[in-house]
Amino acid sequence: MRTIDWVDGAVEIIDQTALPGELRILRLHTVGELVAAIQSLAVRGAPALGVAGAFGVALAARVHGDDPAALALAVERVETARPTAVNLARGARRAARLLPAGPEAVLAEACAVRDEEIAASAAMAARGADLLAELCAGRPRLLTHCNTGGLAAVTLGTALGVVHELHRRGNLAGLIASETRPLLQGARLTSWELTQWGIEHRVAVDSAGPYLMARGEVDAVIVGADRICANGDVINKVGTYAHALGARRAGVPFVVVAPESTVDPDTPTGADVPIEDRGPAEVTPWAEAVNPAFDVTPYDLVTAIVTDRRVIRQASTA
Amino acid sequence: MRTIDWVDGAVEIIDQTALPGELRILRLHTVGELVAAIQSLAVRGAPALGVAGAFGVALAARVHGDDPAALALAVERVETARPTAVNLARGARRAARLLPAGPEAVLAEACAVRDEEIAASAAMAARGADLLAELCAGRPRLLTHCNTGGLAAVTLGTALGVVHELHRRGNLAGLIASETRPLLQGARLTSWELTQWGIEHRVAVDSAGPYLMARGEVDAVIVGADRICANGDVINKVGTYAHALGARRAGVPFVVVAPESTVDPDTPTGADVPIEDRGPAEVTPWAEAVNPAFDVTPYDLVTAIVTDRRVIRQASTA
Repeated sequence: MRTIDWVDGAVEIIDQTALPGELRILRLHTVGELVAAIQSLAVRGAPALGVAGAFGVALAARVHGDDPAALALAVERVETARPTAVNLARGARRAARLLPAGPEAVLAEACAVRDEEIAASAAMAARGADLLAELCAGRPRLLTHCNTGGLAAVTLGTALGVVHELHRRGNLAGLIASETRPLLQGARLTSWELTQWGIEHRVAVDSAGPYLMARGEVDAVIVGADRICANGDVINKVGTYAHALGARRAGVPFVVVAPESTVDPDTPTGADVPIEDRGPAEVTPWAEAVNPAFDVTPYDLVTAIVTDRRVIRQASTA
Repeated sequence: MRTIDWVDGAVEIIDQTALPGELRILRLHTVGELVAAIQSLAVRGAPALGVAGAFGVALAARVHGDDPAALALAVERVETARPTAVNLARGARRAARLLPAGPEAVLAEACAVRDEEIAASAAMAARGADLLAELCAGRPRLLTHCNTGGLAAVTLGTALGVVHELHRRGNLAGLIASETRPLLQGARLTSWELTQWGIEHRVAVDSAGPYLMARGEVDAVIVGADRICANGDVINKVGTYAHALGARRAGVPFVVVAPESTVDPDTPTGADVPIEDRGPAEVTPWAEAVNPAFDVTPYDLVTAIVTDRRVIRQASTA
């Protein structure tokens, strides 16, 4: 099952706001519908957003093909629907380069983006499982944060794809999924995917992660990324940095798994990335709130980055 | 308003499970009712639990004064209602020493425990505010975790009492309250108390704390404690350790405020403290969970501990 796809002239997504209670498919026919789905997190996850960006331009090309001004505006709306993950704008721009060749060429390019993410997931899963086997003696007990499964990509996923592959190989001894406040992508989405896959796991509140590492219950931390900067700083769901601090203090590897489409050589460091604040309503009905959706994990806390093409290691880390 | 008191022959508490929606007073007439209130967190917070332990023995003395076996059992039920905060057992044992002198002597001792916690809050507030003025140039922007206000003590509180005093002096520039999953003591209780006091604040998800420190929005972290070990390790609400790691990396002071009744010289280190696991139901309805209610912050991450009688500094820290 694909979390996002092009079906009969529209974009179909699994509505991630309805899980785990309901597996609901949304059909998105317009750029407006797609942008709303992106902003409500009905579709989310860096690789999936890259595909959404490309399909969004394919929608724009079909609807506004005869109106260059409207088309340019629609493409910009897709590109800027959310600011932090580089994949969204990159997927949109890549499809937009085909606009002069017509809507069918744009759609073909968007489908290529989708197919490349599917292939990237498989490559990351194998490479990441090999790396974990090397970093951890025996069958590791892992901790992951947010959702990086098929729902975040198209199928399989990034960090969770590695978890799936380790399980398939019989090499996974345990998994803790951080609940991932405020919207509970871990407790709702990761736990749901793991259950579909038959992988036993325990959910923990986000702030318990570093303590569970300190008390010896975690052999490695494995997460995804929304953007990887030129210096190796990792932008990912808020809470990732706290987990990286915990891993460093506990002396366990901290591994980031993300496709090459998430690597952004044009952004020098994490300080250069716009961090989306999603407002107080997600956090509490009772007070003002500060709600950064992402954080910055400095490169020196990252043991290794696994992409579909390579493993980048920090020479200085555990 | 006192969060716990002895009124007309019964223990009265503010029901902390009903806040912020409702300010509900519970009257507890039996040890069974008191133990249930402790276990459901209707009354919580280390200093308040010390008072609850003492009043619990006062209830036991009135009800079971003529039945030594039943009395001993009731005292033990109070002492062991929750395992982590040292105050509960200590308050119960202190009152129990007066059992040979009769119920009125026990009650007088329990009231003394209450009055000492009230006096301790005032002393900590002044001492802590002085220390923060010394550690932070100018008016500090603070971050706190869980609830350490009047609801956690009897009046005023520990760390939040310091916040109150800084505000009273005109020396508070901002406050972030961590929501404190799973039961939201920060978003529900701390935010409610701050609003009562007229102190502006923002709530954040727990895992955002270290990132907010890294991006320069926090000048010091200030928390309470459920037990302070002989070596200086601090047991406190889960998430405290992650915030201490964040403070260390950001180079901002990490200050613990707790009464002397929380200092436990009989427990050598944090590894010797039973950490309560409160089960999966508090965390998620959809999966298994690991739910440690507390964590251990190693002494080397603590800049200073403020009690009602002294300031203990780590010579090696920021």
